[in-house]
Amino acid sequence: MVKPQTLRGFRDFLPEEMVIREQIINTLKEVYMLYGFEPLETPALEYTQTLLKKYGQEAERLIYNFKDKGQRDVGLRYDLTVPLARVMALNPNLPLPFKRYQIQPVWRADKPQAGRYREFLQADIDLVGPSSPLADAELIACLLSVVEKLGIKNYRLLINDRRLFEEYGLKDPEILKELDKIPPPYQNKINNDQIISLLKKKKVLTKKTDEKKLEKILGSLEPKSIKEIKGFLETMDLNSKKLKFWPGLTRGLDYYTGTIFELFVKGYKNLSVGGGGRYDGLVGMFLGKKLPAVGFSFGIDRLVEAMESQDLTKNIPTTKTRVLVTIFSPELLKESVRLAGILRGAGVKTDLYPDADAKLEKQLKYADKKGIPLVAILGPDEVKEKKVMIKDMVAKTQTQLSLEALLEKIG
Amino acid sequence: MVKPQTLRGFRDFLPEEMVIREQIINTLKEVYMLYGFEPLETPALEYTQTLLKKYGQEAERLIYNFKDKGQRDVGLRYDLTVPLARVMALNPNLPLPFKRYQIQPVWRADKPQAGRYREFLQADIDLVGPSSPLADAELIACLLSVVEKLGIKNYRLLINDRRLFEEYGLKDPEILKELDKIPPPYQNKINNDQIISLLKKKKVLTKKTDEKKLEKILGSLEPKSIKEIKGFLETMDLNSKKLKFWPGLTRGLDYYTGTIFELFVKGYKNLSVGGGGRYDGLVGMFLGKKLPAVGFSFGIDRLVEAMESQDLTKNIPTTKTRVLVTIFSPELLKESVRLAGILRGAGVKTDLYPDADAKLEKQLKYADKKGIPLVAILGPDEVKEKKVMIKDMVAKTQTQLSLEALLEKIG
Repeated sequence: MVKPQTLRGFRDFLPEEMVIREQIINTLKEVYMLYGFEPLETPALEYTQTLLKKYGQEAERLIYNFKDKGQRDVGLRYDLTVPLARVMALNPNLPLPFKRYQIQPVWRADKPQAGRYREFLQADIDLVGPSSPLADAELIACLLSVVEKLGIKNYRLLINDRRLFEEYGLKDPEILKELDKIPPPYQNKINNDQIISLLKKKKVLTKKTDEKKLEKILGSLEPKSIKEIKGFLETMDLNSKKLKFWPGLTRGLDYYTGTIFELFVKGYKNLSVGGGGRYDGLVGMFLGKKLPAVGFSFGIDRLVEAMESQDLTKNIPTTKTRVLVTIFSPELLKESVRLAGILRGAGVKTDLYPDADAKLEKQLKYADKKGIPLVAILGPDEVKEKKVMIKDMVAKTQTQLSLEALLEKIG
Repeated sequence: MVKPQTLRGFRDFLPEEMVIREQIINTLKEVYMLYGFEPLETPALEYTQTLLKKYGQEAERLIYNFKDKGQRDVGLRYDLTVPLARVMALNPNLPLPFKRYQIQPVWRADKPQAGRYREFLQADIDLVGPSSPLADAELIACLLSVVEKLGIKNYRLLINDRRLFEEYGLKDPEILKELDKIPPPYQNKINNDQIISLLKKKKVLTKKTDEKKLEKILGSLEPKSIKEIKGFLETMDLNSKKLKFWPGLTRGLDYYTGTIFELFVKGYKNLSVGGGGRYDGLVGMFLGKKLPAVGFSFGIDRLVEAMESQDLTKNIPTTKTRVLVTIFSPELLKESVRLAGILRGAGVKTDLYPDADAKLEKQLKYADKKGIPLVAILGPDEVKEKKVMIKDMVAKTQTQLSLEALLEKIG
C-alpha cells in the first residue's frame, strides 16, 4: 500500500485553519476593492523562459520547471509580478492606470524553514501606469487599511527610497544585500557605526569610499518622496506614523527604482509579512518599454502566523455552522429533515446528521468536536407539541422553542 | 526579447471575467456552508505515486508529473478526490461524518477543446462516513440549491444507480463506457432499441446475453434508492422533479458503487457541468479500509460558460468600483484625496485617479472604459461651495451634491 504523505514544504489546510485563512483573505479582497483594485488570475504554469526573464540565475535554482508532455519547458509560477508583466504585454488595450489584485499560490524549491514554505499564498496589489507619488500613497494607504482592518496592533512599515543609493553612488549589490539583513536600530539597538563595522567584518564593505557613502546614507534625513507620501496619508486620515523611514532598507532585488517598503508585525520573529515598492522597469519588460508600477505583496501564510502571534485568530470560530439538526430515531427522521430544510431556507448554516441510525450521544459528540454552537433535537415530545429542543453547547443549557421562536433567535 | 504567451489550454482571467467568477464561487461557498460543508485545501503538488493510486494508466498519460530538484517523482493535482483520500489517511482523528468543500484548480495534459482546458477549477463537495441514502440526499440537495441560487433555468440532474448493472450482471467496462456517451432519450429522441443497435454497431455489444441484460436495465423502473432520495428532497421542500432517472447513465469510471448523477444545463452543448456519486471504496484507499463517501464536483469553467449560454452573467457589473474620484488640477489634488479617504471610510468602493497631471477628459474616459458608474469631480466651484459634482456615467446626468447628500446617496 502507498504510504500517504505530503511533500516537505507543502501543507494541507484542514477546515479549522481554512476558516481563519478564508476570513483573512476575504478581508484583504474587501479592502483591495475598497481602493479600486480588481481581481486578476493567471495560470500556475508558464513557459520557463517567461519566468526566467526577471530573476535569471537565482530563479533557475528555485523554479519548479520541467518538460511537459509536449516537450515544452514549463515552470510553476514563482511570483505574481512576472505573470502581471506578461498579461500587460498580451493585453495592450487594458485601460491604464491598471490596478489589480491577485491572490494565488506560488512555488519555490527553497529550503523549508520557519515561515518559509515551498508552496505559499501571495496576495499582491499593483498599480500600473502612473509614476506619481500619489500612486505610491494609494498603494500604501490600501495596505495600511488591510492591516488595520485585520486588527493587527504594533506593526511598522519600514520605508526607504532606492534613489538614495543612486544619489550617493553606492551600487555594490553585495553591500545592499547584507545591509538589508540588518534589522533597523529601534529593533536591535544598533547604531550606524556598528552597522558599518558589521559590514566590514562580513567583508562586503571593503573600500573606504563606499564606507563614506554608506555613512552619509545612514545619516540622511527622510527623503522628500516619503514626506510627500506621508502627507497624502494624513489627508486620507490614515496614521502616517506607522511609516518608519529606515535608510538601511534595500529590499535586495535590484529591480526597484523608487520607494521600497516592508511590513513588520511586532512579536512575529524577524520576518516581514509583506514587501513592495516602485519598479518602473519591470512590468513593461515584455513590451520592451518602461511601464511605471508600484506594488506590494502580502505573504498570507506569514500574515496568518503573525496574527496568531498576536492572539488575533483565537476568537475566530472553528466552524461557520450555526446549528446541528440531530436525528432522534429512524421513525422521526423526516421531522429532522424538514427542520433542516426550513432552517437553510431561512439562511441558517445548518448541518443535518446524515445517518438515521446513530445514537443521539454520538451526534452530540460530533457537534462538540466540530465546535457547532447549537444542537436541535426533535424527539416525540417536541414533535407532538410542535416544538424544537435547542441545546446551547457553549452555555450548556437547553430550551424548548417553537419554530417561530427558533427562527427569531437564529434566523 | 522573449515573446510572451500563455501555454495552450491555460488562460488568464482579466478583471471583468474574474468579477463574474468570484461572484459564482462566492455563491457556491455560501450554499456549501449553508449545508454544513467546510473548506479544505491541499497542495498543488503530490507524490506521483499518490496520484496514480486511483486512476492508474489513464492518469499516467494525463498527469503533469516530473522529478523535482530533490529527484522526487511529483505531479500536479489531477482531481480533488485523491487528495481528500490522502487527507483522511493522514488525519485519522478527523470527526466523522466529514463534510468538506474544496475549490481549487486541477491540471490535466489533455487535448484542449470546447469546455476542456488543461488547467480548470473544480468545486467539490464530499460527505465521508455514512452510507445512508440521507447522505446522498443531503449532497444532492446542496448541489440543487447551488444551481437554483445561481438562477440557472432548465437544468436536469440525470441520476442512476450503479447497483443496477451489478444486479443484472452487466459488467463489461467497454459497454458501460460507450453507453455513457449516448445522451438520454429526452435529449436525442432515441429509444432503447436504437441504443442497443448503436452499441452493436460500435462492436462493444457482441454477446446476446449482454444484450438481454442491457435491455432489462434500459427498461427498468426507478430504483428504490432514487425514490428515497426524492422523498428526502421533497421533505426539504426542494424540487425533486429536477432529478431525472436515466438507466443509461454509467459515469464511466468504475469506482462508483451506488447512486451516480450528472448535471446538464439546457443550451450548453452536450457537456455536463458537474458529476458525482457514491464511491464507498475510494476515500479509504490509503487506509486500506472501506470509508463510505458520496461526492459531487462542479466544473467552474463549464458552469460559467453554461450561465453565459443562458445570458445569466451579462447583468453582472464588470467592476465592483462604485465611484471614481477625479483630480481637477494639481492645486486641488488634496481635496480629491480627502474625498476618496472619506468615501472609503464610509465603505464606498472608490477609485482615485492616481495622477494629478492627467486631463479630466482622460480620467472620464478611464471611468467609462472600466464601467465605473459614478464619477466625482471637485473643481474650484465645488471646493468653494463645499459640494461635489457627481456624473452618472449611465444616465449621462450630473448633479452637485453636498458631501452629506453624496454619502446618503451611495454610502
